[in-house]
This record gives sequence, structure tokens and C-alpha cells, in this order.
Amino acid sequence: MPSYTLTDSANNRWEESFQLTPNDAGLALSPAWSVTKSRLHGGRRDGVDLIHVDNGVLAFDVIPTRGMNLWKARLGSLALGWNSPVKDGPVNPAFVDANAWGGLGWLDGFDELLARCGLDSFGPPYEEAGRTYTLHGRISNIPAHFVALHAEEGKITVEGHVHETRMFQTSLRMVTKITTAPGSTTLTVRDEFTNLRDVPSDLQVLYHWNFGEPLMEEGSQFVAPVKTLVPRDRAATEGLSGFDVYGGPVPGSAEQVYLMELAGEASTGQTIALLKNREGTAGVALRYSVNDLPAFSLWKAQGGRNDGYVTGLEPATGFPNPKPYERSRKRVVTLAPSETHVAEVTLQVCEDARAVERVEAMVREIQAKTVRVVHPKPVEPFASEG
Amino acid sequence: MPSYTLTDSANNRWEESFQLTPNDAGLALSPAWSVTKSRLHGGRRDGVDLIHVDNGVLAFDVIPTRGMNLWKARLGSLALGWNSPVKDGPVNPAFVDANAWGGLGWLDGFDELLARCGLDSFGPPYEEAGRTYTLHGRISNIPAHFVALHAEEGKITVEGHVHETRMFQTSLRMVTKITTAPGSTTLTVRDEFTNLRDVPSDLQVLYHWNFGEPLMEEGSQFVAPVKTLVPRDRAATEGLSGFDVYGGPVPGSAEQVYLMELAGEASTGQTIALLKNREGTAGVALRYSVNDLPAFSLWKAQGGRNDGYVTGLEPATGFPNPKPYERSRKRVVTLAPSETHVAEVTLQVCEDARAVERVEAMVREIQAKTVRVVHPKPVEPFASEG
Amino acid sequence: MPSYTLTDSANNRWEESFQLTPNDAGLALSPAWSVTKSRLHGGRRDGVDLIHVDNGVLAFDVIPTRGMNLWKARLGSLALGWNSPVKDGPVNPAFVDANAWGGLGWLDGFDELLARCGLDSFGPPYEEAGRTYTLHGRISNIPAHFVALHAEEGKITVEGHVHETRMFQTSLRMVTKITTAPGSTTLTVRDEFTNLRDVPSDLQVLYHWNFGEPLMEEGSQFVAPVKTLVPRDRAATEGLSGFDVYGGPVPGSAEQVYLMELAGEASTGQTIALLKNREGTAGVALRYSVNDLPAFSLWKAQGGRNDGYVTGLEPATGFPNPKPYERSRKRVVTLAPSETHVAEVTLQVCEDARAVERVEAMVREIQAKTVRVVHPKPVEPFASEG
Repeated sequence: MPSYTLTDSANNRWEESFQLTPNDAGLALSPAWSVTKSRLHGGRRDGVDLIHVDNGVLAFDVIPTRGMNLWKARLGSLALGWNSPVKDGPVNPAFVDANAWGGLGWLDGFDELLARCGLDSFGPPYEEAGRTYTLHGRISNIPAHFVALHAEEGKITVEGHVHETRMFQTSLRMVTKITTAPGSTTLTVRDEFTNLRDVPSDLQVLYHWNFGEPLMEEGSQFVAPVKTLVPRDRAATEGLSGFDVYGGPVPGSAEQVYLMELAGEASTGQTIALLKNREGTAGVALRYSVNDLPAFSLWKAQGGRNDGYVTGLEPATGFPNPKPYERSRKRVVTLAPSETHVAEVTLQVCEDARAVERVEAMVREIQAKTVRVVHPKPVEPFASEG
Repeated sequence: MPSYTLTDSANNRWEESFQLTPNDAGLALSPAWSVTKSRLHGGRRDGVDLIHVDNGVLAFDVIPTRGMNLWKARLGSLALGWNSPVKDGPVNPAFVDANAWGGLGWLDGFDELLARCGLDSFGPPYEEAGRTYTLHGRISNIPAHFVALHAEEGKITVEGHVHETRMFQTSLRMVTKITTAPGSTTLTVRDEFTNLRDVPSDLQVLYHWNFGEPLMEEGSQFVAPVKTLVPRDRAATEGLSGFDVYGGPVPGSAEQVYLMELAGEASTGQTIALLKNREGTAGVALRYSVNDLPAFSLWKAQGGRNDGYVTGLEPATGFPNPKPYERSRKRVVTLAPSETHVAEVTLQVCEDARAVERVEAMVREIQAKTVRVVHPKPVEPFASEG
Repeated sequence: MPSYTLTDSANNRWEESFQLTPNDAGLALSPAWSVTKSRLHGGRRDGVDLIHVDNGVLAFDVIPTRGMNLWKARLGSLALGWNSPVKDGPVNPAFVDANAWGGLGWLDGFDELLARCGLDSFGPPYEEAGRTYTLHGRISNIPAHFVALHAEEGKITVEGHVHETRMFQTSLRMVTKITTAPGSTTLTVRDEFTNLRDVPSDLQVLYHWNFGEPLMEEGSQFVAPVKTLVPRDRAATEGLSGFDVYGGPVPGSAEQVYLMELAGEASTGQTIALLKNREGTAGVALRYSVNDLPAFSLWKAQGGRNDGYVTGLEPATGFPNPKPYERSRKRVVTLAPSETHVAEVTLQVCEDARAVERVEAMVREIQAKTVRVVHPKPVEPFASEG
């Protein structure tokens, strides 16, 4: 399998720019695909490495400099991602000060289709034992020290390694493989999180998948096999009856978060969560195992178009509460020395009504075997506010 | 009009180096002028973009990487700017931690002739509703995502766009045009601040124009048409009688700040503030409209030569108090969605006694129509300390 | 003497890469030596300048971007330095947020053989008069604005200038000269710290020399002429009887710090501190004057191999307590305007038993003239915990 190293800090390797086509790799020429790596210059993106993968049908951008997050994606005329107030990203972490604005500085770089939160902690800023923890942790703002591209018949993989380390605190290695197939409408993010310490380590990871217009619009819908549903706070409680339907942009409206346990297939734990447009003619689905990612949060930010009209579909190891809260509810993963936790999420783009309907059928099938419990207000052990 | 794009993040354009002369632009060759763009390397300036404009008489540096601030200027042998303790700037914002030293980290990059303060807030660090706000805000430490150069007969313009954005907080676009004419002794900074949000937005902007030696020296003088004058605190109160005269450097002396309302011409609001040397043979004047920038602060830092012997002439939307104080005194601009606030300041270098005298005459003319009220100590609604 | 400027911000000079051999410099060809300067790319080391010096016997790396720290060294097969949890350094200060984790963010870049701590303060985070001070100060995270290489017969010198400045706080210039001789087993770090302010200035500097495996191992030993020995806290008190002997890695064990005054030769103040391996067949010694660096801390971090199994031999102007504590015990240097404090530390690598034994003989000689006082627990004026 042809492999190409783009970054390898340990061996002082780094490619400023790089391009690969099937022809270069000696692989089947159809469907035509390409991978392009570039370094961005100027503005807040100065020094950011970007990898653009176009599998011939689905195109997406990987950002090694931002912890291997996914920036934007596109299938034909359908743009995935969102119109973030960040405006001129992707932002080099050198220009992100996580401690700004009372620990909310993470927002300064938040404009991605997929932003990972974690790995030592995610959730709102908090303080514990004199130590401060900032919004959604560090992983999105750590450049990958190793990046490689692998190409074989029917498979294109971008591999990246990121260290989230701090003496006396944490030492986690993330090895991500972002894979797609030429001509496919899906991409898969498979992450291995390994505790490199000689003592046990916390692990928290939340996959912040974000979708704005056009998929999100007045009347678009969230569809998933829900086992438990809890509104996070008063704003979410007020919108509970229509939690799965989107309104149009309403400037100044409060964000709403719904905490869920999704049901998975009995044997594999596989579940699927869908966002479809109003007409049901396009959508995106996330497929993953609830065994790896037992918690799911639905984030609805339905403010103005220019203020971040966006929804987050967020499979995770736990809920976005401060870690001490999650720890006491047993939702923080503990990794023994050298132990690895694997999580895999597949993004499927549904390009027509038939594809949407097929996903909905899968959801119905799983839901049929599961009672849906809806809590009318915030309730333990999911949320403290009541 | 020939235009040259130097940075355009949205279109992945960025010029590492660039030079333009009248000959290149097909314009009149005399007076000879040039614009040179370079990227700096090494030290804390690593990665900083700098644009040097020499109009044939007046030369100055624009720093796209530092929010389009002006670094230094020179007219013949007369250097404008100051000897900042920063020493080896201009400093890349990547090396500035605004949260350092209790929120005073902004000082680590402060060495400019013109440093804009704002845009969400300026003034000392403060906390409000659990959010921290650092000294003088963020705009000076945000790289411009768009930079262009325009040249036409009699006019050279450097244009820059900077986004100060943060989801849930602010989304302001600054479009600045810094203009001069070949052979001129002036430059004009014209800024448009637009609220990109769908909800109203605060705007605070203060133009921190800084001058050290040789213009500032023992016996140099500040001259302006003052309507109201208030010492900010005890140190300023002690120096009130000689507020408009400078002493020589006195190591360890406390900074003094005088808060003022300047009078403007009745029809246009245009005012003018002058700093002239002891002999009155050289000076700098700021011209602007009090309608756009109703507040003016005079900052006198008369410590040792090596500690920042400098004075700040600071037209602004308000006074450098914490924003909550300014808000309650109605001095924070509120921009409706898509609304734009424009501010324009012209720096005029007075190269001889005649030019100085001409400015003084203008000041006298405006002052003649305005009673000057001097408060003997800090007083509401200007300063809380009394 | 041939000199080569690699970085000179004031004159816009910077060399992306550079190599020098005796042949280039017109010097004796044997022993063969070389100096190589490169810029690193990718990961968290993106934008870091590194200078590799190989004197033919001893090789080491200087990091201009990290305040002229020493990254790693090697003598034949003997690696000096340590296996830091940072993993993929050297880390660009742009990616270090000193305010992270309650002011411990300095740890994010800590992976060096020699990390200087200071210069305004070192020690744990603290707050004083509303100002925050982060772990071990700023100097390790400030890029040098001037770097030069000097070569003459028998001497290779890397010179670097670093400004630690902040208006209203500090303005210190460090001029370091890191010198070695072709074929030598030693290198010398000579630093001049000058107060550039017009008022007196604090100075604190601690040389954090760090050694892990193979020199540090179960049974390796610390040998030095000790005048006073104080355990810093309870963990150190528990290990006091074996303070000078190392155990093997014990995951989860607490770090221990021993505060010492070393004895020096009567005339010069020269002292020597040794770390030798279990067999006494290899070691490293630090030579310096207790007149310049009167305090010495021994840091034993004997946790797991992957968590930073390392020891720090730390000559300093004082002990790593918060500065207010040190100030009140008269251990903060005060520099008058323009005054310079010089400190010089020589690292000697002992490549065999004979070299080790020679150093031990020196230690014995000094110790023979000095009573060793061992305090059984933390005691004033060294440590507050009792």
C-alpha cells in the first residue's frame, strides 16, 4: 500500500505541499480522486496545514494543525459544516487563548464540521483543586506531530497522531485514521486513545459534529433511536416538545442542549442519528457504537444566521458537564497504563430522499425495540439543574 | 486604480514580499514613493507581516499581523513613535498572552505609534458575569485576513480587514484604510466598524497614538481646544496645573491620565490636538471629529527613558474605565445589526515652527468659542475615584 | 575571529539554515566539529529554530526560540537529557499557554536538558497585588532576538540575546554565551543579566538541569559538598535519609525536592555537583560559583518511566518558593539600573570511572572543610512547611 509521510516531527520530516492522484499511486483512475496538502498563510490561518481530500463524490478538509479536526465537507452542491462567527478560519492554535473570556477562548477557533473535545476533559470551564480547566479541553488546539496518507484500491486514509500531554496531569496519544472510498458518500473517523502514562488516566472525548444551513433550516429534523432524553436546563425544557424539529434563525434566542442515551443494535451497539432537511431530500447520518460512545448531546443554536445558526450532533464518552460531575456519575473513562479506547464514527451523506428514508428505516427498527423515556426537566444523573 | 492584494484568506492568497513604485503603477514619478511588504523572521517578530510606506516625505509602517496598527513613522530626521520597553517588536500576537500578569499581557506587544484598543472593550482588566476582559481588548493582536494596496495619482492606500469575533460575544469587522499622498506630511486612518451579528453589539475603540522623544521632552506641550478636563486619579490630580506641559524623564514617577472632552468646529465637529516640542519647531497634530470620537485621554508616562518615556494622545468612543462603568455612563456605542460606525483620524506632522503655529491658531479659534472647564479632582461621570 | 549572525531582529537578519565546519572557518580540521542551524516544521515544533553543535566528542542542541535553552546532548552513546511527557518537542512558545492549568502551563514545553527559570520570578504560580505569576516565569518561552556563532581555534561559542520585558514590570536583557572546545567533554553556559530599566529590578534565575536514564537509575547517586540540607515538604522529609540515592521508577510516587546550600572553594566560591550512575562509570557534573548562585535545589521525580523519571540539579539565585517568600528571606537579587549579574555553569560529562572519581575527589576536598548540616524537616528560612 503506497504511503506518504507528510509530517513526522521525530524524524524532522514535513512537506510544505503535496498532491496525490490515482495515477501517482498506480491505482484505478475512476472515480477520479485527489488529495492535496497545503500550508495556509496570512491572517489567523497563518501556519495552518490543511489536507483536502476529494474522493470524486465527497470532498472534505482535514486540519492537522487543529488536532486532525475536519474543517468543511461538500457533496456536489451540498455544503456540510456551518457559517461560524469565526469567519476567517481555520485558526492557528497559536492565536487561540483557551483562558480568554473566563475560559471560553476555545470558541475563537471553533468553526469546524468536526471539532473533537477532550481528551483530559470537555465541557464548560471549571476549577478543581486549584487547577483551571477550559472549555472543551485542549485536543482541538494541538498540532499533529505525525501525518501520513495511505492509498490503496478502494480506500484513502489520512492518518494523524496527536499528543495531549502535560507532566503530572495527562499523557494521551490519539491515533486517528480518517478514511473514505473513491466515489463514496461516507467518511469514517476512527480514533485510538492510548494512555501513555504509567498510572491510570482519565479520558473524555466528545465528537462535536456541526451542521448549519442548508441542512439545518426551519422544519429540518433530528431522527435517532432514543432511549433516554433529558433537557439540560430551562431553555431546553421550554423547547422539549419540539426537541427534534428545528425552527428558523431567531436572533438572540438561547441555545438548547438535549442529553440522550441512544439505543444501539443488540449485538454490536451500532446506532445511527440523522439530521434531514425539511423536505427529507438530503441529510447527514452519524453511525457509531453506543458501547464506545454511550452519551449523545444534541446542541441547537438557533440564533441569527450570522451568530452561528448551527446544530451539534455529539456522540461522546459522557455529557458536557464539568468533569467532576461526570466523574461522580461514572461517565469518565479510566484507562490503565498502555490501555487504549477506540471510538469510530462514520459520517454518511444522504444525497436524496431514498437515502434519507433508508436511514430513517434503520432508526425505526432500532427504536422499535426500545422504550423512549423522556424526562420533562433536568434530572440526575444527567444534569444537575432541576 | 491599480490595486494589489497582499493577503486574502478567503481565496488563499498571500504575498510573502512585494514592492511597488510609481513606475510599477504607471503613475507620476515625482515625488518618488514606494511601498514594501515583507515578512519578518526570528525572535518575537517571527511571522509578522510589515508594510513600509514611504510617500517621499513621510514614511510609516503598517502591521497587518497586529490588527493594522502603525509601528513607527519618520519625516526626514524626525522619528515618530517611542522607545518601548518591548525592545524587539513588532511582536507576533502568537507570543502575546493577554491573560498574563492579571490580564495586563497586552503590554508585551505594546510598542507602536498607533495601537488600537477595543473593539468589544478597552481599558483596564475587569470581570463581569464570570467573564474576564483583558487590558485594552483584542484588536491589536488579531492578524488581518485581508490586505490590499491601492495606488492612484496623488493617493496611496493600505486597506486591511480584521475580524474581532467570538461566538456568543461579538462579531465586529473593521475595515481600515490608511491613506497618504506622495509628498504629504499627513496620513489618515479611516476605520469602519460593522456589527456582523444579528443582535445589537457593543463597540469601544480608542486610538492609542504614542509619542516619545524627541517630540516629547522637558518643556514640550500639549495644545487642544478643551471643553472639559478631569484628572483620572490622585497622581493626575497632583499634576493638574501643568497637565499640558511635559517634564523630563523621572525614573519611577507614576503615570498620569487626563480625561477630556475636546471642542470641535460647530458644523463638522472637527477638532485638532497638538503635541509640540519645547521650541515649538516641530510637532504632531491629530485631526478628527468629536462626533465620532467624543472622548479624549491624555496619557503622560514620564518615567525613565528606558521605562517608556511616552505620551499617549487618545481619541476614543469613551474613557479607559472598565466597560461596565462606561456603559452606565452611556459612553459605549451600540451598533444595530449591520450598522457601521466610522472613525477617522489624521496625523499631521508639523515640520517647522510655521506649521506648528498654524495648528495652534486653529486650536485657539475653536477654543475661543468654548469655555474650558477644569475639574480639580476626579469627578463623575468621568472617573469614579474622587 | 570568524563570527556569523544567524538572527538579528534589529537589522532584519535571519538565516533559515546554516552550517559551519572547521574548513569553512579556516580552523584546525581535527577534531572534526560542526554547527548546524535549522528551522523545524510541523507539529508543536513548527517555527522553532534549533542549533546543533557537535564538537567532535560532545554534541548538544541550543534552542533560540525557547530562550536559548539546551534541548538534548550526547557524548558517544551516552544520551543526556530526559524522556519528557512532552514527547514531541521542542515546543514553540506560541503553543505554550503559561496560564493554563492554574498557572502551570509552562510544563507544556518542559522537555529540556537545561531550562532556565526566571527572570522576574521562578517557582510555583502565585498572585501578588492582583498580578498573577506563572510557574517558573517567562524566559524559557521568549525567542532570542539576536543569535550569533563565533568560532576560533579551540573554541566554539553560540551567543544569544533574550529580552524579558514588560512595561511597568521588568526589562531584563540576558546575553548568553554557550561555549565548548573541539574534542572537549564540557560546555559552559555564561549568562549576563542586565537591568535595562531606570529603576531597580528584581532578578531570579534558576538553572533547571535535567537528567533521566541512563544516568539516573536505581542506585545512581548525587554527590556534592553540602553545607545545609532541608527537605522542602513532607514527601521530601520521608526520603531524607536517602536523599542522595535514586530508586528505580515507581509509578505514582510523589516528587521530592531538597533545598541546599553548597560549599564552594574559599577563594573562588567554585563548587561542583555530580550525578553518577550506579556503577560509577559515567556521570555529569555541574561546576559554578556559589557566589553567583548561592542556592541549590535537587529535584527527584521518580515516577514511572513514561511520566518523567528525571532529576533536576538546580543552581539558582534562590529557592523555588513564591517570590514574596524569597524576597522576605533576602534571596531575590536586586539590580540597580544598568547593573549586570553574571552566572556561569559548566556541564562536564564524566565518560568513565576515572573521570567520575576525579570529580568525587574534588567534592570530598571541599566537603572536608565544611560541616554538613541536615535539617530533619522543612525549616525557616528555606521552606515554610514544617
